Amino acid sequence: MNLAQSDSSVDYLNTGAWSRKALGEARRYCQVNVAADAAASNYTGVPPRSEWKLTPGAAYLHYTPNETIGGVEFAFVPQVDAPLVADMSSTILSRPIDVSRFGLIYAGAQKNIGPSGLCVVIVREELIGRARHGTPSIWDYKAVADDGSMLNTPPTFAWYFAGLVFKWLKKHGGLAAAAERNRAKAELLYRTIDGCGFYRNPVEPACRSWMNVPFILSTPALDNNFLAEAAAAGLKNLAGHRSVGGMRASLYNATSIDAVRALSEFMLEFARRHG
Amino acid sequence: MNLAQSDSSVDYLNTGAWSRKALGEARRYCQVNVAADAAASNYTGVPPRSEWKLTPGAAYLHYTPNETIGGVEFAFVPQVDAPLVADMSSTILSRPIDVSRFGLIYAGAQKNIGPSGLCVVIVREELIGRARHGTPSIWDYKAVADDGSMLNTPPTFAWYFAGLVFKWLKKHGGLAAAAERNRAKAELLYRTIDGCGFYRNPVEPACRSWMNVPFILSTPALDNNFLAEAAAAGLKNLAGHRSVGGMRASLYNATSIDAVRALSEFMLEFARRHG
Repeated sequence: MNLAQSDSSVDYLNTGAWSRKALGEARRYCQVNVAADAAASNYTGVPPRSEWKLTPGAAYLHYTPNETIGGVEFAFVPQVDAPLVADMSSTILSRPIDVSRFGLIYAGAQKNIGPSGLCVVIVREELIGRARHGTPSIWDYKAVADDGSMLNTPPTFAWYFAGLVFKWLKKHGGLAAAAERNRAKAELLYRTIDGCGFYRNPVEPACRSWMNVPFILSTPALDNNFLAEAAAAGLKNLAGHRSVGGMRASLYNATSIDAVRALSEFMLEFARRHG
Repeated sequence: MNLAQSDSSVDYLNTGAWSRKALGEARRYCQVNVAADAAASNYTGVPPRSEWKLTPGAAYLHYTPNETIGGVEFAFVPQVDAPLVADMSSTILSRPIDVSRFGLIYAGAQKNIGPSGLCVVIVREELIGRARHGTPSIWDYKAVADDGSMLNTPPTFAWYFAGLVFKWLKKHGGLAAAAERNRAKAELLYRTIDGCGFYRNPVEPACRSWMNVPFILSTPALDNNFLAEAAAAGLKNLAGHRSVGGMRASLYNATSIDAVRALSEFMLEFARRHG
């Protein structure tokens, strides 16, 4: 609504559930071209840059750097002519990001920022002030920016809480240190999965997410046992998203390396008993 | 966007700042008729029902039962043919409301419900499913209702907190008891203002708000003294809205009768010293 008119063409990369939601909503507003679709790999990877069919003059390219359900993550920032728009909900604060590469970043707070109910938007100044006729004022970036993000009463508790999280991050080495922690957490878990034969993560190694690690058991009949025994060991919320089943471990900033170690040890022990 | 098409006529009552914001935004979407405007009284009252110029076939009548800045409140629910739409942000939970009289009630949480960032919408089923083309899905009541108000990740903390407030209200006699408490609080403060000659509330007695009580000193030069001495006595946030100046005491459910007694005693004592 802020970047494209109804006759504008916009490019979308479809790498999973959140990409699909975004492009489905965009179709109600402008001409959507799916420049690349990971269907051929059943959404276990990112289609190679060379295969993308970009639209000349597209108002923007939208992509989802990390798909939380599929556990697929871009290892690179796309280089394209159109302004780059990214749903960073599950990527922001996981590592340093070169914000200057983007036209617009949006991110729901509920992964690495703070409580749900807050959405952070970072937008290039030159892209502000282009909202189409009929855009609700509260969603017109110009109106919001002109009022210092307080056109409405903001979600004060979520803002305050986000501020505490930002301070905590700075105190613990900033995003460079967060990236190291997240890389180490993810590597440990993927090593556990790949190393024991009892578990499997279907995502192409180069596209594996640092934040969300889906995995399946070699014996799906043991899924409920796994979840029950894990919960009894204090390892909770490991069921995969209801749309895909299996297991999923989310490793957002609030998850410590010790928690991942505990999960890894539990998984190896479970595999020894049932494998 | 849910109730009117671009060629629909809609009626608005303008009784103050929040009415104006609502009708200003509506003008971007449909034909707005200001059926009554309290300008003649400088927004210190509600224009009499007999003077309203309603539009035959209007898609709805919108009004603001309580204006927080002006301290003007409707003592009645309008009886009209069109569906009644009310911004109940500062009215909801202050007393029992006959919800069946309304087509749509909306209320920001931050007065009597819980933390800001949550908006409660109560809408007649027959008015759901009429959203105009181009309404963002997240604001289309049908899409939201179909997904149990969880089309997006809801503001979980605000929901949880609101639940605690609802339980607290029920435990303390429900809305009938809340109304008694609020009536008593407001009466005490207006009696203090009217009784001592040093203070003045400009609102017509029949339209005085239970929730927001603006008042001015007979000597505006003493405003800063009043605010400083009040703050020193633990009575804070009494400055009027920046758009009007003077003083304002907000008496939402979280304000106890004891707090209002303390304010009343301070006001009388301040008037004795400076009057």
